[in-house]
Amino acid sequence: MSKKVTLFHEGSADMKSLLGGKGANLAEMTRVGLPVPPGFTITTQACLEYYEQGRQLIAERKAEILEALSRLEEQTGKTLGNPENPLLVSVRSGAVISMPGMMDTVLNLGLNDETVEGLSKLTENPRFAYDCYRRFIQMYGDVVLGIQHYRFERIIDQRKEAKGAKLDTELSAEDWQWVIERFKQLIREETGTDFPQDPREQLYGAVVAVFDSWNNQRAKIYRKIHKIPDDLGTAVNVQMMVFGNMGEDSGTGVAFTRNPSTGEKELYGEYLINAQGEDVVAGIRTPEPIAALAERMPEIFEQFQEICGKLEAHYRDMQDVEFTVERGNLYILQTRSGKRTAHAAVKIAVDLAMEGLIDQKEALKRVDPNQLDQILHRRIDPEAKLEILTKGLPASPGAASGLIVFDADKAERWANEGRPVILVRPETTPEDIHGIVAAQGVLTNRGGMTSHAAVVARGMGKPCICGCEKAKIDLRKKEMKVGDTVVREGERLSIDGGTGQVIQGEVPLIDPELSAEFQQLLTWADEVRRLKVRTNADNPHDTAKAREFGAEGVGLCRTEHMFMEADRVPLVREMILAESFEERQSALANLLPLQKEDFKGIFRAMEGLPVTIRLLDPPLHEFLPNLEELIAEVTKLSVTQSGSRELLQKENVLRKVRSLHEFNPMLGHRGCRLGLIYPEIYAMQVEAIFRAATETMEEGITVCPEIMIPLVGHVNELREMRKLVNEVADRVEAETGQPVPYTVGTMIEVPRAALTANEIAKEADFFSFGTNDLTQTTFGYSRDDAEGKFLHQYIDQKILPENPFISLDTEGVGQLVAMGVEKGRQTKPALKTGICGEHGGEKSSIRFCHQAGLDYVSCSPFRVPLARLAAAQAALQDEK
Amino acid sequence: MSKKVTLFHEGSADMKSLLGGKGANLAEMTRVGLPVPPGFTITTQACLEYYEQGRQLIAERKAEILEALSRLEEQTGKTLGNPENPLLVSVRSGAVISMPGMMDTVLNLGLNDETVEGLSKLTENPRFAYDCYRRFIQMYGDVVLGIQHYRFERIIDQRKEAKGAKLDTELSAEDWQWVIERFKQLIREETGTDFPQDPREQLYGAVVAVFDSWNNQRAKIYRKIHKIPDDLGTAVNVQMMVFGNMGEDSGTGVAFTRNPSTGEKELYGEYLINAQGEDVVAGIRTPEPIAALAERMPEIFEQFQEICGKLEAHYRDMQDVEFTVERGNLYILQTRSGKRTAHAAVKIAVDLAMEGLIDQKEALKRVDPNQLDQILHRRIDPEAKLEILTKGLPASPGAASGLIVFDADKAERWANEGRPVILVRPETTPEDIHGIVAAQGVLTNRGGMTSHAAVVARGMGKPCICGCEKAKIDLRKKEMKVGDTVVREGERLSIDGGTGQVIQGEVPLIDPELSAEFQQLLTWADEVRRLKVRTNADNPHDTAKAREFGAEGVGLCRTEHMFMEADRVPLVREMILAESFEERQSALANLLPLQKEDFKGIFRAMEGLPVTIRLLDPPLHEFLPNLEELIAEVTKLSVTQSGSRELLQKENVLRKVRSLHEFNPMLGHRGCRLGLIYPEIYAMQVEAIFRAATETMEEGITVCPEIMIPLVGHVNELREMRKLVNEVADRVEAETGQPVPYTVGTMIEVPRAALTANEIAKEADFFSFGTNDLTQTTFGYSRDDAEGKFLHQYIDQKILPENPFISLDTEGVGQLVAMGVEKGRQTKPALKTGICGEHGGEKSSIRFCHQAGLDYVSCSPFRVPLARLAAAQAALQDEK
Repeated sequence: MSKKVTLFHEGSADMKSLLGGKGANLAEMTRVGLPVPPGFTITTQACLEYYEQGRQLIAERKAEILEALSRLEEQTGKTLGNPENPLLVSVRSGAVISMPGMMDTVLNLGLNDETVEGLSKLTENPRFAYDCYRRFIQMYGDVVLGIQHYRFERIIDQRKEAKGAKLDTELSAEDWQWVIERFKQLIREETGTDFPQDPREQLYGAVVAVFDSWNNQRAKIYRKIHKIPDDLGTAVNVQMMVFGNMGEDSGTGVAFTRNPSTGEKELYGEYLINAQGEDVVAGIRTPEPIAALAERMPEIFEQFQEICGKLEAHYRDMQDVEFTVERGNLYILQTRSGKRTAHAAVKIAVDLAMEGLIDQKEALKRVDPNQLDQILHRRIDPEAKLEILTKGLPASPGAASGLIVFDADKAERWANEGRPVILVRPETTPEDIHGIVAAQGVLTNRGGMTSHAAVVARGMGKPCICGCEKAKIDLRKKEMKVGDTVVREGERLSIDGGTGQVIQGEVPLIDPELSAEFQQLLTWADEVRRLKVRTNADNPHDTAKAREFGAEGVGLCRTEHMFMEADRVPLVREMILAESFEERQSALANLLPLQKEDFKGIFRAMEGLPVTIRLLDPPLHEFLPNLEELIAEVTKLSVTQSGSRELLQKENVLRKVRSLHEFNPMLGHRGCRLGLIYPEIYAMQVEAIFRAATETMEEGITVCPEIMIPLVGHVNELREMRKLVNEVADRVEAETGQPVPYTVGTMIEVPRAALTANEIAKEADFFSFGTNDLTQTTFGYSRDDAEGKFLHQYIDQKILPENPFISLDTEGVGQLVAMGVEKGRQTKPALKTGICGEHGGEKSSIRFCHQAGLDYVSCSPFRVPLARLAAAQAALQDEK
Repeated sequence: MSKKVTLFHEGSADMKSLLGGKGANLAEMTRVGLPVPPGFTITTQACLEYYEQGRQLIAERKAEILEALSRLEEQTGKTLGNPENPLLVSVRSGAVISMPGMMDTVLNLGLNDETVEGLSKLTENPRFAYDCYRRFIQMYGDVVLGIQHYRFERIIDQRKEAKGAKLDTELSAEDWQWVIERFKQLIREETGTDFPQDPREQLYGAVVAVFDSWNNQRAKIYRKIHKIPDDLGTAVNVQMMVFGNMGEDSGTGVAFTRNPSTGEKELYGEYLINAQGEDVVAGIRTPEPIAALAERMPEIFEQFQEICGKLEAHYRDMQDVEFTVERGNLYILQTRSGKRTAHAAVKIAVDLAMEGLIDQKEALKRVDPNQLDQILHRRIDPEAKLEILTKGLPASPGAASGLIVFDADKAERWANEGRPVILVRPETTPEDIHGIVAAQGVLTNRGGMTSHAAVVARGMGKPCICGCEKAKIDLRKKEMKVGDTVVREGERLSIDGGTGQVIQGEVPLIDPELSAEFQQLLTWADEVRRLKVRTNADNPHDTAKAREFGAEGVGLCRTEHMFMEADRVPLVREMILAESFEERQSALANLLPLQKEDFKGIFRAMEGLPVTIRLLDPPLHEFLPNLEELIAEVTKLSVTQSGSRELLQKENVLRKVRSLHEFNPMLGHRGCRLGLIYPEIYAMQVEAIFRAATETMEEGITVCPEIMIPLVGHVNELREMRKLVNEVADRVEAETGQPVPYTVGTMIEVPRAALTANEIAKEADFFSFGTNDLTQTTFGYSRDDAEGKFLHQYIDQKILPENPFISLDTEGVGQLVAMGVEKGRQTKPALKTGICGEHGGEKSSIRFCHQAGLDYVSCSPFRVPLARLAAAQAALQDEK
């Protein structure tokens, strides 16, 4: 059996999986000669063994720990439990993947009734010694013995009250002795045994407690959120204590080697004189900014600066460093890559590359595309004067503005009618999903950052504020009250999910912009990536924004969004409710010029680049009034106004809505199935495209329309629709004399299309994988139903590793994508292939698209930068 | 260029694709020395050439026809257009696949004002000659010149009226001459030219007319119905006329060499003395049974019998023979394999094998499994005394009994509540599909055999009567009136779709039974087939029937059908509406003994054979009241009885129904997704299975339960559910001490399951392909919506070659099935695989299952014999 306990100087950074992140770092720092207090690491293997043995620390392991301890004693010249020269140690967790604050720590271990006396004598500071001892008992009591923290605090409070003291620092050595006795009494009462005086027993207890903390509730939740496997286990680091609280020549602090918020190259952090690390964290005393240390301890500051430089050079990244000064000696307790905002991540990566510490490719790898989502959201114009109503928890970033609505059904209906809404609920449940999908943003007055609304909104990239407790919501009256202000259904509300601000009325939103460093990074990305990046955009504004962000074309222009605009809905309804072909034709003729103008705007914005336009996709009843509401209205009218004209009219509409009603609209009469049964609708759209193209070309603008037929499952469908497109194109050309270059392709979004891609490719110039629908049909999941009814539980219970609507299911759906590409190219080697589902803007899915050999991904405008970076990272992974 | 016109004696039976069925037969009969009037065939190639040339008979072809004509003139010693000894010919179509009555024929061609005189002299029968001539003009006018038949008939009627004659036979030679003049005048008026006197022109005209008739409306429809390709073209047979109407020593007839209705070995047919073939068909004179010929023309009869024997021996099948006797000489005009009922087909195939004409394998190939559907339906007990209300068109065979319902929605609801219904509508439209699906049978008072109701019902194998015009349907009053009898909604009605009989009240139905010959044939089939045949059955009666029909196990026992029974629905609703886990448990505890008894009955009926039981599959809201109805009720109550207790209760139910409501239930919370979220439901079902098995085993009966988890898409789902099954099995065994042998498997019914079958097989003992759902998800079709909204048009327009819900889409869905089998066996070579969708009882799908290497197919009980035969045919095809 291999060694399961190693001293710091025996390890190195590459032993992370064994030593954990912290242990490997301590070892590495020791190895390169930094002033690290000595110690040893009990490896993750020992932790796994502990669990295998049914939560038992076996004798062999105990022996190994004692062996390491005795070597530590040699190194330090101190001995655990020796009153003459006591060794005190910290016992800390250290997982392979950092889980800050999730697991337990015990400090000052080794103190007992005897060694505390020794410490008192050695330091000539009895108050310090008893303070250390009471801190140790308190932590040990909490962490190892499971007695709640507040019960110890209450004893200290009693003493402070008795002494009329406000701060801990006002208590004397005697006070602490009194406190210690009461602490020991509490432990005796609670556990039935005395506080352990044997330092070895203390040590075993602390090690076991740290192992156990791997499976405490918050650690498990943290792992789930951050997708960290449960079977890694944690290492335990036993390290000589150093004390920042030994007087005015001592102190402790935390610093980042660069500003973690902006990325600026400056030491950033804070410190406290005469304090232990926990004092900094606890926030009882206000720490000073790290820059102030330059005056307070100029030599130490200089040494620290130098060490920070060394650390950055060694780790080639911005570091988050914990240090302690014990009686004028600087110790580095920990260093790790510092967490940073997306902004800082970009700047630091680019700066490090500019400084020559890393190369450009490394800089590209340093930024997590998923994190960029933070800065690629609309935000409130900082110039705007805001009427801030209240604040809640900033649960999902981005800002939104819309009409307030108090139930999900109405949110969906209003949104379908083209009205932007903010869904306001006491809290959301899975039954509200369709409302969240429809809304611009969500506000709840209950629930925290991990509430249903928060999780779902983040998943969808929608702004969300949770736990906005000051907003009193009255669902019956349909109003929200904040103090004396009442906001009623239909009134305008704005939210900033990044700050938690709730604002009455509309506020100007501005699009995100790219910093110079971000631009630089993306330029490097463009040099590396093979995948092209396009955008999903349905209007000129989004198209222009996407192009500014580097989009290389429109991958998906959904024409139905154009039908949804308020002024079009009556025309669209007229078209659908038409009783004859002629009536339908006349409604279509009115829609044509509107559609044409839409297309012209998009062609202009994408000048010279391809624009893929998908013909009408959703079932027609989506444009009609809601069936259930109609039933209620008709029933009511038939009781109250039997025989009235209004009733007759409504009954007529109800009849039509019923006739278009579907059991499973997702699998119903939509996509090219509409185009085949009502070719006049597609013909109108195609005519609008070609007229728009012709007119735009007359402006001297190059136009590259790619016409996309949705939901093809059999090559014959595409063949028929392609014929229709060609006929209309020929007709328009005959009339205008202006040929328009165009291609015709299809969405691959039902499994049969991928399975028969070799056939379908005969009629297609391009394939665009509609992975949203393909995921629905491949799994047999209706997204609307699944996310509300079982999908979250599936992910919680690890039935599925990920939400397949967010991260492409490479095993199943991906197999169809790969098959589609391969079979399609067998028939037509030059076939252009892309992806236009939401996965087109998600890191791991983009990586898959790269591997599957697609030509491009297409995503929402704000995700284009993210996709450019992710595509570059995917290409870099090939180089390995 | 190859020869496109051949004389009969130059051809043979194996030239069918060139000569057409009729031409090849004439050639073959000529070749084997039968008395066939000589002639020649213009090949299908010439027809295709005609269409390629834009409907032109090119000069080269005309020359070839004349060349053949002159050889025919040599053979017969007669000459076309020669008044001295005129050759008269028939010109008939002859497609490769017989399309009886669909295309055109011209008889007596060669007659003109001169040759008719010659014929008159030669036959010494002026009346006969002029009758022939007028017949020719009439047919030519109709077929070649496009003048409607009735306009000629009207002229004849005028003459008959003038003469006070009732029958054609009462008209004299002079009368016919008068008629002929008027016919020629009609033609002149209608076409602007004279009736052509040049026999060559007549011949070209007739050939072209036959070619054109390939694309007449009824031929096109016939091809669509019978799935005959449009690009085969027809041959044209030009044959010397022989006349059965030359006096009492002449005659004509049609006979089958065996009884086409029963299959008995006896000449079956009819003849007319002194008549032409069309007289037999027209039904003006009543023909005599063929047996009577033995007395009338004993020598001819003997000769004919002998020829029939030769023909059967030569063609090794029952023949349908047309013959003519001209002045004591027997001519055979046509022979072909005779159409026969399913009963006859079975008997003839077995008899021919017994007689040594064909071997057993050939006998198996001779019966079309699809035809067997005719005899494998429930029918009305012949002993029953029936109150026959009225009769309609027998549009889809089988008998059914149920409650009369006048709209599709209600039909569906009542059926869901376990009440059998007969859907009665004036006519059905695609919007009624769900009602047809739900109903036991369908009755309409409009529409014919090809109406929507008829086509859909036949497709689904449901009894249907159409065009029942005496039934007056009042949709508002919800009643049907026949004479004075009124049948109201909810009253019992029975229909026999095989006879068209509508019967008031309930009638006893009896299951089909297998004749001795059918049993024999199936025994032969069993010796040949590799595929096992199981049945889909949910109750002991169906299970027993299926076993009687040779089922080798239950392939699919749908447990939800047990939930639908009237006495269970309240319990099931209680279980679903439970507000707590405890409430649900208690409802489940009440369901358990009922389910257990169900299983015991099935285990007993399938003693010793495997029974695959699928756990609950449909979404829970299927068991609840209809949402739309509830909304209407609640709206009404809230207007009329605001605040009432009933309103509150209904609102409560509405809330729950709404919360279970799904946008796409087909893709929603069902199958194992239910089992994973509510494991207690599956646990109850599994417990019922194991308790039933234990108790049945105590009766000394061998039980082989196979527990099937529905809708698995990821191996983890199956892993969890398998654990649950094992736990319950262990628990029951611990309690009873009786181990039950069992296996656990899954349905493969979403594409992802097939794509990841290698993973899923790790947890599965068997795969059962649920091709209904797999078709829905692979195509992205909701069957309920597609069949109503676009699928029929897709098939009409040939976007899809077949309805994929009836005949397995081998290209797409089949690819997934084959992949599932292959990948599953990679992981687990002994994996058992079967199919349990409706395709399991369809011939071509069964063939695919055989080829894909499945172990079994499973189908409804009455289709088991069909499947046994189809499986044998599939195996025989391998031998080729």
